[in-house]
Amino acid sequence: MSEGITPREEDYSRWYTDIIAAAELADYAPVKGCMVIRPYGYAVWENIQRALDQMFKETGHQNAYFPLLIPESFLKKEAEHVEGFAPQCAVVTHGGGKELEEPLVIRPTSETIIWSMFRKWIMSYRDLPILINQWCNVVRWEMRTRLFLRTSEFLWQEGHTAHATAEEAEHEARQMLGIYQKFAEEYMALPVIPGQKSEREKFAGAVRTYGIEAMMQDRKALQAGTSHNLGQNFARAFDVTFQDESGKQEYVWATSWGVSTRLIGALIMAHSDDQGLVIPPRLAPIPVVIIPIYQGPEREMVLAKAQQIAQQLKDCYQVKLDDRDQYRPGWKFNEWERRGVPLRIELGPKDLAKDQVVLVRRDNNAKEVVPIAALQERVKGLLEAIQHSLYDRALQFREKYSFYIDDYEEFKNTLDTPGGFIYTFWCGSSTCEENIQEETKATLRCIPFQNEDGEGCCIYCKKKAHDRVIFARAY
Amino acid sequence: MSEGITPREEDYSRWYTDIIAAAELADYAPVKGCMVIRPYGYAVWENIQRALDQMFKETGHQNAYFPLLIPESFLKKEAEHVEGFAPQCAVVTHGGGKELEEPLVIRPTSETIIWSMFRKWIMSYRDLPILINQWCNVVRWEMRTRLFLRTSEFLWQEGHTAHATAEEAEHEARQMLGIYQKFAEEYMALPVIPGQKSEREKFAGAVRTYGIEAMMQDRKALQAGTSHNLGQNFARAFDVTFQDESGKQEYVWATSWGVSTRLIGALIMAHSDDQGLVIPPRLAPIPVVIIPIYQGPEREMVLAKAQQIAQQLKDCYQVKLDDRDQYRPGWKFNEWERRGVPLRIELGPKDLAKDQVVLVRRDNNAKEVVPIAALQERVKGLLEAIQHSLYDRALQFREKYSFYIDDYEEFKNTLDTPGGFIYTFWCGSSTCEENIQEETKATLRCIPFQNEDGEGCCIYCKKKAHDRVIFARAY
Repeated sequence: MSEGITPREEDYSRWYTDIIAAAELADYAPVKGCMVIRPYGYAVWENIQRALDQMFKETGHQNAYFPLLIPESFLKKEAEHVEGFAPQCAVVTHGGGKELEEPLVIRPTSETIIWSMFRKWIMSYRDLPILINQWCNVVRWEMRTRLFLRTSEFLWQEGHTAHATAEEAEHEARQMLGIYQKFAEEYMALPVIPGQKSEREKFAGAVRTYGIEAMMQDRKALQAGTSHNLGQNFARAFDVTFQDESGKQEYVWATSWGVSTRLIGALIMAHSDDQGLVIPPRLAPIPVVIIPIYQGPEREMVLAKAQQIAQQLKDCYQVKLDDRDQYRPGWKFNEWERRGVPLRIELGPKDLAKDQVVLVRRDNNAKEVVPIAALQERVKGLLEAIQHSLYDRALQFREKYSFYIDDYEEFKNTLDTPGGFIYTFWCGSSTCEENIQEETKATLRCIPFQNEDGEGCCIYCKKKAHDRVIFARAY
Repeated sequence: MSEGITPREEDYSRWYTDIIAAAELADYAPVKGCMVIRPYGYAVWENIQRALDQMFKETGHQNAYFPLLIPESFLKKEAEHVEGFAPQCAVVTHGGGKELEEPLVIRPTSETIIWSMFRKWIMSYRDLPILINQWCNVVRWEMRTRLFLRTSEFLWQEGHTAHATAEEAEHEARQMLGIYQKFAEEYMALPVIPGQKSEREKFAGAVRTYGIEAMMQDRKALQAGTSHNLGQNFARAFDVTFQDESGKQEYVWATSWGVSTRLIGALIMAHSDDQGLVIPPRLAPIPVVIIPIYQGPEREMVLAKAQQIAQQLKDCYQVKLDDRDQYRPGWKFNEWERRGVPLRIELGPKDLAKDQVVLVRRDNNAKEVVPIAALQERVKGLLEAIQHSLYDRALQFREKYSFYIDDYEEFKNTLDTPGGFIYTFWCGSSTCEENIQEETKATLRCIPFQNEDGEGCCIYCKKKAHDRVIFARAY
């Protein structure tokens, strides 16, 4: 174990907080429930943004910006929506030294303000589809908070689209879930299960909510992204109609979808270890660090070679050359391990004499000696290997702790030890779902899209059931 | 004049609003004083962000994120700061259904919350400098608002740095103003005058404020960016000290600096004309649009060639091929003129027969015929030419309306007609400055860094004066 980091086995929750502090990802803010995202943590978020933003744009979405403040009355226009969000709102009552005529809420999500604008912009089928995304902050008041996972303010992107047909909206909602899955698996090295949310778990105001679920190292589930088919709910609430090709007025169909800085919490909990953070290369702010090893007169020669190598690699990767004289190599190894840099290059006078360097992988500590002439190629190969290996490890872990269970006692015991995803039959009733949650603290994570298990009996009420669904304790 | 756009000469203020509507840059939001930045306007902001962010990173700054909500008591810790900002604050009094123990203000700027964190992070000279930037939204309550120029919520970046010496802080404040000047001139094609703000005009809490001033087409001034040397004011307010190399405890030195979505307002007012928006190529979301011209059976052939050209140019530029069948070429010319696309490529069957296209510049309507073989090179050359020509035109305009005046009557008359920048001697007294402002509605824009005019007499009190300063009516 590393100094200052509580081992996972001892206290998983403290381990998580220690990792964040040790890697300088974030800090508690003086305002209750809010966090400061420090530069290294924000650099991870910038990498997440860059990759997702490109995927959104490739599928025809454009970014825009809608106001932070929403009239309280807007929230009330959609009945389920206000019920879901009003209890979490931060309310502005004074502005410019005066009490406001109508209180404003800080956006907990932007459906209402955006649909009030769509009303101005949509007249005819020719104005559709509208495919908009927004990167912004939102506020949802939280009592028990945890850095990245649950804070009163967080950063996210929220997509909002308007369509002429129900089919198009459904296609969009599923497409965006697919993008989230691709991002989670290919960039975050995080295997996820895509599926539909139950009525109890769906978004307040949605017809259907889809989500991707990931397993953390404590075998709890974490919802890593959601996409909602909103039907015509918000179009009705804000009276947004369009003239279709035949001249008929119809309500517009909608979707919304989002992921947040919570993903950084998932990233930490999926891959990191007792030495510190582990980040997959594709999202690492610094994928490669070079540590020169020298004493006294060797300094110039070793540093010159290290700079030359850094320069070569810089065309392909963000490379950090740690040339600080005031710290010893061992201290530097430790620091960059804590910060999760995927690949370390060590370079001393003996290596230099043989035209070679030592490469050390963060994910498994494997060391290898590589001729400098082959370095560029090998770094590329190793970064890809680390990316895949993290994914495979997480997938194996999830499979190890996924259980098909049809007996309620076994269900409860397994949730306690070892914990994990429990695939079980469920009749579709909210009452059974609620009872299970109250008795076991497990929630229905999703009804997986891939569901090949035929029919069975509900684990709770024993009635006929069509779907094996996933229950788990969750973040 | 273009349909729906009021000519500048008729009503400059309506012209400005019409341009924004015609180019679909922004829209008024249902919350008083707030705006919606529409996709085309947001794409301009993304280009501004990309260019500035790179300059910030090249000079060693890192992005981070601090909370939106600030305890009201924090604002009060710096006496000038609270006086400057408290009247403009939006105040959150309720959260999660309960009245808060202490009201929270939505950040009008983040010095206070950031310095409360710096207190945790700074112990020794080894922790310095800290060079942080944040891209975010801020709220400053406004009564009379104008899209982009003055809205209650706006987007901006705010840099916040901490240093071990006064000299370093001063160097940083001046360096960042230099970056703003470079950005304004090289990307926005906007000539600016860098200088120091007077005591009355400086940032609430700063020791010295520097700014860049630009002239709009109605000959009014617009402050396009500011950089503040905060001295030790915030370090004292938040008790942030560090141990220097000799072991002595000292207060930390600070700067802050920012530019906002106001820059989009400046961009519009500096270059646009009665036909619509004009955007410099380096910030244009679409620098080049291709309009195929065809009737009936020519369609396939012309479109195929247009696609081929679009494909070739796409390696170097964002290119839009407008292949919508439902609109005629003339309608499309007009649309892309309104949206300020710098360069239009027209391509019809006759051009195709001669292996040529027609290029039309947005800035001066100049047309030229170019062989397709030479197109790539010519597009590059023309985009550069447009960029420079916009800058030159704006510079000539500013010079034409800059006046050296030593007589107060002439000063007043010139401000009325034609308006512009008035370089005049000022004794340095806030009273003279205030009187001039009350009598003429002109404010002291800056004390320019380049000030070669020797000594003179204050235009107001006739006392001895060292500086020729700039007075102008301003946004």
